[in-house]
Amino acid sequence: MAGALSSIIHANPRARAFSTSNPNHPLLSRRPTALAMSTTDQSYWSSIHADIETHLKQAIPIRPPLVVFEPMHHLTFIAPQTSAPALCIAACELVGGHRDQAMAAASALRLMHASASTHENLPLTDRPNTRQTVDHTFGPNIELLIADGMISFGFELVAQTNDPDQNNSVRVLQAIIEISRAMGSQGVMEGQYNESQYGESDGKKLFHAAWLHNVCKKKEGALHACAGACGAILGGGSEEEIEKLRRYGLYVGMIQGIFNRFERNEWSWKEVNELRDLALKELKDFNQAKVKTISRLVETKLCNV
Amino acid sequence: MAGALSSIIHANPRARAFSTSNPNHPLLSRRPTALAMSTTDQSYWSSIHADIETHLKQAIPIRPPLVVFEPMHHLTFIAPQTSAPALCIAACELVGGHRDQAMAAASALRLMHASASTHENLPLTDRPNTRQTVDHTFGPNIELLIADGMISFGFELVAQTNDPDQNNSVRVLQAIIEISRAMGSQGVMEGQYNESQYGESDGKKLFHAAWLHNVCKKKEGALHACAGACGAILGGGSEEEIEKLRRYGLYVGMIQGIFNRFERNEWSWKEVNELRDLALKELKDFNQAKVKTISRLVETKLCNV
Repeated sequence: MAGALSSIIHANPRARAFSTSNPNHPLLSRRPTALAMSTTDQSYWSSIHADIETHLKQAIPIRPPLVVFEPMHHLTFIAPQTSAPALCIAACELVGGHRDQAMAAASALRLMHASASTHENLPLTDRPNTRQTVDHTFGPNIELLIADGMISFGFELVAQTNDPDQNNSVRVLQAIIEISRAMGSQGVMEGQYNESQYGESDGKKLFHAAWLHNVCKKKEGALHACAGACGAILGGGSEEEIEKLRRYGLYVGMIQGIFNRFERNEWSWKEVNELRDLALKELKDFNQAKVKTISRLVETKLCNV
Repeated sequence: MAGALSSIIHANPRARAFSTSNPNHPLLSRRPTALAMSTTDQSYWSSIHADIETHLKQAIPIRPPLVVFEPMHHLTFIAPQTSAPALCIAACELVGGHRDQAMAAASALRLMHASASTHENLPLTDRPNTRQTVDHTFGPNIELLIADGMISFGFELVAQTNDPDQNNSVRVLQAIIEISRAMGSQGVMEGQYNESQYGESDGKKLFHAAWLHNVCKKKEGALHACAGACGAILGGGSEEEIEKLRRYGLYVGMIQGIFNRFERNEWSWKEVNELRDLALKELKDFNQAKVKTISRLVETKLCNV
């Protein structure tokens, strides 16, 4: 990627929006004709997404106080989706864990992504027109407060999975640290800040590819790296497996970030192909029968089209 | 308090501001002439505040990326203080724990209170003039993002205190659940939402005391209840001690909330005296020599003045 990093390109004005990927084909739904996912793979990802949805609907019922739970429910399910929660579950299962072990962390990632997305589109006095294309059933003050609450609630969901029978408290705490770092000051939040500088340029400025590359790494990259690591941690993976799935997630997220921000041209396909190769290398020591489905996130055919 | 709950009074326009208490006399610094705190007590609370300050300064050094850590440092230390973090440490020591065991949770409470205070004063398009009297070195977008990061960072600080030698992971997870609930949808956040309705009335409306009473319970009350419970949990307290210190914290916080919102009149002093009596009852089964200092938070002389 070294050559690409020095390029100067026109950044895509879609940059500030979070991914709106189809949850069944998390990464590359913008190119549906290129999808060659088998029915088995489709059904695997669909079942993960359905399970996370069910878990979250049970965790956030519409109940009193309605002023809190109605907007929280709405903002959680209206937000653009990301493939990170599904990756968290798939990573857990890849290392031999059970889906339930990673379900709370996956749900927390979806909640926190929805919270970040809500705040990213909040109309502040220094950016009053941010939300022009975004659903906004509730007012800015509610969106601000409820999205704050969603961050805390995500941590509560994960912390509650402590189970004396499983003796999993240390792993649960590890997952909490992973999530707090990914969502915090050196992950998504730093990426959001850097990207907001792009927003302030009003789309007219030429941006260094290296700079936006770093945004992809900090936003989608950090979120997916965290998802891979958390899934492996909670599924009982070894240190080596955790690190491999963290790196796999990083590359998956960066590919997603590039497709969200850059025009599909020779440069971006080259970048994506390089990242895909790096991602697949991280999976080579896992059980190859099991790897087939998770590797669909960087499906070869898709990236070569 | 039943009689008082049906009263209708003029709410104090200071309502929306967080407490600006003097950290050495956390609760009642607005009446300094009434303070009869001994040098020993003063030095106890001062040492707690100094230790929390040192811990946070080490946790948030001004380092790269400066765009993140400079405002986080600033917003953490510029925010109005609350007595909740100090209560967390005092509760830990009251049940026989060591100050270090609760230091991260106390620091997290201060970080999250600062985050809530920052967001409470964020100039949104539907409340552009919120911050007229508030320090605002950084722009709204930075304040929004950094305060989000402060929530996650608070949880990270607490989760990191897991120590295999102390076998404390279950207690650390309990504290994380306490903090997430207190800061979230049924604690501070709900109180902030309800209080914002007062803000929208532009200070002209008569409010039911019961309604603002509930705001005190959810904001300062929930925060201090959490502080008492977390301190007791992390200090190794029994279930009974945890619940007593949770209730003690609730009453301490409610008194603080009432003084922040209501005129000092016959009604509010009656309320405060009742809450003080309830608070002191929660302490009666603890070692009375040790109780003396923590009970200064609802100091008899102060409430009778």
